[in-house]
Amino acid sequence: MLMFKEEEKGLVPCGIPYIFHKLGDVDKNVMGPKPFIDLGGEVITEKVVDINLDNKIVKTEKGQEFTCEKLVFATGSQVVVPTFISGYDLKNVFYIKKSYNYIKQVFNELQFAKNITVVGGGFIGAEVAEQLALEPDKKVTLVESEPCCFSKAFSKDLCKIATEELHKTAIDVKTSTKVEKIIGIDGKVSSVKLSTGEELPCDAVIMAIGYKPNTELAQKSGLTVNKMGAIIVDNYERTNIKDVCAVGDCSQTIGFLTGRIDNVMLASTATAEARVLGHNLFGIRIKKNFNGTLAVFSTEINGLSMASAGVNDTNAAEANIEYVSATFTDVDTHPTFEDTHPLSVKLFASPLDGSILGGEVWGGKSAGEIINTISMAIQKGVTVYEMVSFQIGSHPLLTAAPTKTVLIKAAEMIIGQIAKK
Amino acid sequence: MLMFKEEEKGLVPCGIPYIFHKLGDVDKNVMGPKPFIDLGGEVITEKVVDINLDNKIVKTEKGQEFTCEKLVFATGSQVVVPTFISGYDLKNVFYIKKSYNYIKQVFNELQFAKNITVVGGGFIGAEVAEQLALEPDKKVTLVESEPCCFSKAFSKDLCKIATEELHKTAIDVKTSTKVEKIIGIDGKVSSVKLSTGEELPCDAVIMAIGYKPNTELAQKSGLTVNKMGAIIVDNYERTNIKDVCAVGDCSQTIGFLTGRIDNVMLASTATAEARVLGHNLFGIRIKKNFNGTLAVFSTEINGLSMASAGVNDTNAAEANIEYVSATFTDVDTHPTFEDTHPLSVKLFASPLDGSILGGEVWGGKSAGEIINTISMAIQKGVTVYEMVSFQIGSHPLLTAAPTKTVLIKAAEMIIGQIAKK
Repeated sequence: MLMFKEEEKGLVPCGIPYIFHKLGDVDKNVMGPKPFIDLGGEVITEKVVDINLDNKIVKTEKGQEFTCEKLVFATGSQVVVPTFISGYDLKNVFYIKKSYNYIKQVFNELQFAKNITVVGGGFIGAEVAEQLALEPDKKVTLVESEPCCFSKAFSKDLCKIATEELHKTAIDVKTSTKVEKIIGIDGKVSSVKLSTGEELPCDAVIMAIGYKPNTELAQKSGLTVNKMGAIIVDNYERTNIKDVCAVGDCSQTIGFLTGRIDNVMLASTATAEARVLGHNLFGIRIKKNFNGTLAVFSTEINGLSMASAGVNDTNAAEANIEYVSATFTDVDTHPTFEDTHPLSVKLFASPLDGSILGGEVWGGKSAGEIINTISMAIQKGVTVYEMVSFQIGSHPLLTAAPTKTVLIKAAEMIIGQIAKK
Repeated sequence: MLMFKEEEKGLVPCGIPYIFHKLGDVDKNVMGPKPFIDLGGEVITEKVVDINLDNKIVKTEKGQEFTCEKLVFATGSQVVVPTFISGYDLKNVFYIKKSYNYIKQVFNELQFAKNITVVGGGFIGAEVAEQLALEPDKKVTLVESEPCCFSKAFSKDLCKIATEELHKTAIDVKTSTKVEKIIGIDGKVSSVKLSTGEELPCDAVIMAIGYKPNTELAQKSGLTVNKMGAIIVDNYERTNIKDVCAVGDCSQTIGFLTGRIDNVMLASTATAEARVLGHNLFGIRIKKNFNGTLAVFSTEINGLSMASAGVNDTNAAEANIEYVSATFTDVDTHPTFEDTHPLSVKLFASPLDGSILGGEVWGGKSAGEIINTISMAIQKGVTVYEMVSFQIGSHPLLTAAPTKTVLIKAAEMIIGQIAKK
């Protein structure tokens, strides 16, 4: 078992924003290949430059050649670089690349930056901005083109809540605003010109406008990619070439509810694909139970945990999915404890059979695990009617009261709505 | 809609232990009938002394009579009083009754107690002992007849972990020890004689040796009860008499996996039953999806959260259920955060089809919600094979890494075990 990596050290992808404050150190966010090596794997830290798919020959930058029986592409994603924005390549315009060496350099350079503009209010952008704004000496501006942040993942309601939470931090949040131009002096960024006409002085820009499948090598080798640039695979992560597979951000995902090509790039999705492939690499033995990718997002901004799975009003409109939705709010533990937080669940369900199609949770930290119960409900086709007799565990220190389990109450509200129709 | 209550104020049952320290006040653990009244209900605070089931006539202590069309018994449970232990009725021998007035009195009396013996290491006993031991002036001893505490709810492994955690508190934990006699001076408790021969001086005893269905009135009225003393009901909480129903601790529960009469008395079970009844009181409209009671327990001792659902080694042996089990341990959030806790999941599954039969989670607070994902897996018949492609949400601040989702890794370990058989 051989693994090729461009860099020796890897970064925990979702942990990158926390390098900039909570961890305070790039080396606290490292994951190495040790577990793989412990299981008998071998690692070659060299860039692969050429692959012969028919003969399964892998050629590295230094000219070494390796042959193998089975080949897995797990080349991930790369940052979207907005070459259409003048100044995108100035010094101190940074990107959140999943590269230890690159992020180490960004981390070091940012020590000297006082005035930082983060472009893009998705998860990475908002989280990086939130963390940097916690550093005492930094002024951070977040620029988002949509009216609210997180608009690709959350419902309109939750986007609004999340954006309000960002406004409560030290970040200067500018929504409905685009970056028209990055202006430099002596090749180094000095300000950002916004669509509002404002010119924002800054000594660093962080571009967080998205990722795209990293499939240049795969394409060069002859693999077929879809319109998103992702390697086309079947339910078992196999490409059209025998014994060549692809998993993670570089491989195609199909929407769980639509069956359409999707562009979800999430570590949790990638690991599910990797497990499916791992168990089935030498012959299909374990069915991929949940066909299609259910995007499950979670984050925390300013102490407010937020999570979503599946259908919401925005993606339902895009895919023409009918739904009813309801929100129930209570608290996450015993109502009179001092450390109790509000907790809300918004559910989306079919108006016809009541099956749960999507959900959102926000409030205390338990939102991060409650979304996984909702995720299982969606993946197993659980209906709001079934939720009436869903038996849960409850405890004053750990959950809402069993009389007001937020998830179940939201389901009951949907039952009421469907009955009224 | 009329509700009869013996006392005006009700207590949050699972919150009672926290009155003694974290809440520090009985009135912070009160739930009143306001939500019921807001929905148009009427409350009569009087004890019901007689019921004519055929004519549906309810007679109160003060001689008032009320007629109704439908009648629901929700009389709950009452404490087990060990009349076989001499001294059980001495002054300062207290019970954890779900009564505001009684607990208010216990709370006031315990202010003066310095040396308290808690009898019974189940949830209520252990939680009350843990809370009292956090009060600076109190010495607390916990006496449990089994070798470990929580033995009715947890696997042997988790019982051991939980008992070790109790030992780390200020409580003097005495396991494999029975109370032989409670000794008094002038009618008030002065010491407890143990099966070890030791005589333990104390000025208060708290008996927490269990609850039994409160069905005296139901039996007197002519309802049939089972060998546990619980009112016999069908899947929709209906008794054998038309328009007479029973829910909660006073009604019969059937084991989820065994189909046998069970004696689970949990608020979360009671509320599920209440929801099923509420939706179906005027005609069956919503199927009780999960037939039988899946006991889902959770607690926290000394900062260690613990939860269980369904089969474990102890109850599997009793019911002759075959299983394979595996435990996976990692952490509950990003591994290098300072506020990260260990997190373990132990799963129990069928050795034949891999269906998840039970689970336990312990570690950080997220255990309290992860058990509900496991609970849904059991109730929906999810197999360990399906868990391979289970898609979850993950975030460094909220969950384990997606590469090591503790629940999924435990499922994968079971797959390995079944394959080896």
